[in-house]
Amino acid sequence: MVEPDQVVADQLCLSSSQQHYLYRVLRLGAGQQFVALDGQGQQWIATLTAQSDVAAIAPLPLPSSATQAPITLAIALPKGSGFDDVVRQTTELGVSTLQPVISDRTLHQPNPKKLDRWQRIAAEATEQSERLLLPHILPPMPWRDYLKQVSEGNRWICVARGDAPHLLAAAQASDLARPTVIATGPEGGWTEAEVEGAIAMGFQPVSLGPHILRAVTAPLAALTLVTAARTLGEFKDI
Amino acid sequence: MVEPDQVVADQLCLSSSQQHYLYRVLRLGAGQQFVALDGQGQQWIATLTAQSDVAAIAPLPLPSSATQAPITLAIALPKGSGFDDVVRQTTELGVSTLQPVISDRTLHQPNPKKLDRWQRIAAEATEQSERLLLPHILPPMPWRDYLKQVSEGNRWICVARGDAPHLLAAAQASDLARPTVIATGPEGGWTEAEVEGAIAMGFQPVSLGPHILRAVTAPLAALTLVTAARTLGEFKDI
Repeated sequence: MVEPDQVVADQLCLSSSQQHYLYRVLRLGAGQQFVALDGQGQQWIATLTAQSDVAAIAPLPLPSSATQAPITLAIALPKGSGFDDVVRQTTELGVSTLQPVISDRTLHQPNPKKLDRWQRIAAEATEQSERLLLPHILPPMPWRDYLKQVSEGNRWICVARGDAPHLLAAAQASDLARPTVIATGPEGGWTEAEVEGAIAMGFQPVSLGPHILRAVTAPLAALTLVTAARTLGEFKDI
Repeated sequence: MVEPDQVVADQLCLSSSQQHYLYRVLRLGAGQQFVALDGQGQQWIATLTAQSDVAAIAPLPLPSSATQAPITLAIALPKGSGFDDVVRQTTELGVSTLQPVISDRTLHQPNPKKLDRWQRIAAEATEQSERLLLPHILPPMPWRDYLKQVSEGNRWICVARGDAPHLLAAAQASDLARPTVIATGPEGGWTEAEVEGAIAMGFQPVSLGPHILRAVTAPLAALTLVTAARTLGEFKDI
């Protein structure tokens, strides 16, 4: 991941930790190539030069996945450090924005220092998964406040029991070129009032299948289904 | 989770830890009901009686999910204790059989004691997710040996790069009333020889999307897609 000020015309200035990673860990040498990302959607093909702190770069065109409509996960904060894994895995799976929310049954009062930690985890996972865009991780806010500000697009709230339609069916019947928000609940599930509040704001209740998923598993399943439906939908358009 | 010898005619004998859980943790009392499972596909609606170690039981019919064709995940063992989370989360998501496999790039030589641990985790997750069937967890074996014994049905191997069709498209075009095996690779991916060996044994290479998923995330995504495709397929048949 490179910072904007590291790029000067067709050259990339490498920090000492980046040099260590490229020369020592990956064992690359002058003339060898790697892909550099800025996490804002720009990428370059970079070639190591005889000067160890400089790489020659040429812009790489963006794949279509970098310009797709955003998918936001609004996730009731799970217990303990469970959100660390959620950040890592939803980043791999392609989330655009993570909005941790505090629901009526959230036991966990978030430590404000956690946001930095989550952003570091997301940056690492962005590189490892060869994503181009860093997900945005927003500061936790109460679910009721988040509901008031949610913008236009597809809006699904995952509920554990009852006869809601399956999220995959809902996603495959929707226009996924629009922004999407998917909300997943806390241990113990959303309260009835929370689900009703969401429905009043245009959310459709959906199911993730017959079993009860934990608060750390539901976001992964939900995101997997919507990104897969979107990928297949694109192929259909061609 | 009850053992077969706890069930005598229409009565269930409760162990002291089950009594503790029902009376102290869940705070139930005489006359209140709960669902008892044996992990082999049988379930009962149980009613607490005035005698604290006995519950009256009546059989509950099985939902269709308990009689579906099995889904087996053959998972290259991830580093460290990563497989613990895979066991817990794939159990929630409805896996039938977990076959840990040792691939050319598996760094990790499994400790034989781990199997007991994984089975305990799966039993806990079966109860928490309100599943009826305990998944089978098989002892780790080399991928090449597993390939020789894999039985008839749908066979997919998830590959990270290249232009393989998406698993969701493959699943939605297949007969999911047949048994299914899905294989996911290690950190660093399957070797070319491993993928070719799988193709020779009837496996179809499939993609889980544009990003590179870690060895602990790929099984969750793969299972989510196939179980969702199966659930939607059932509704279509009705």
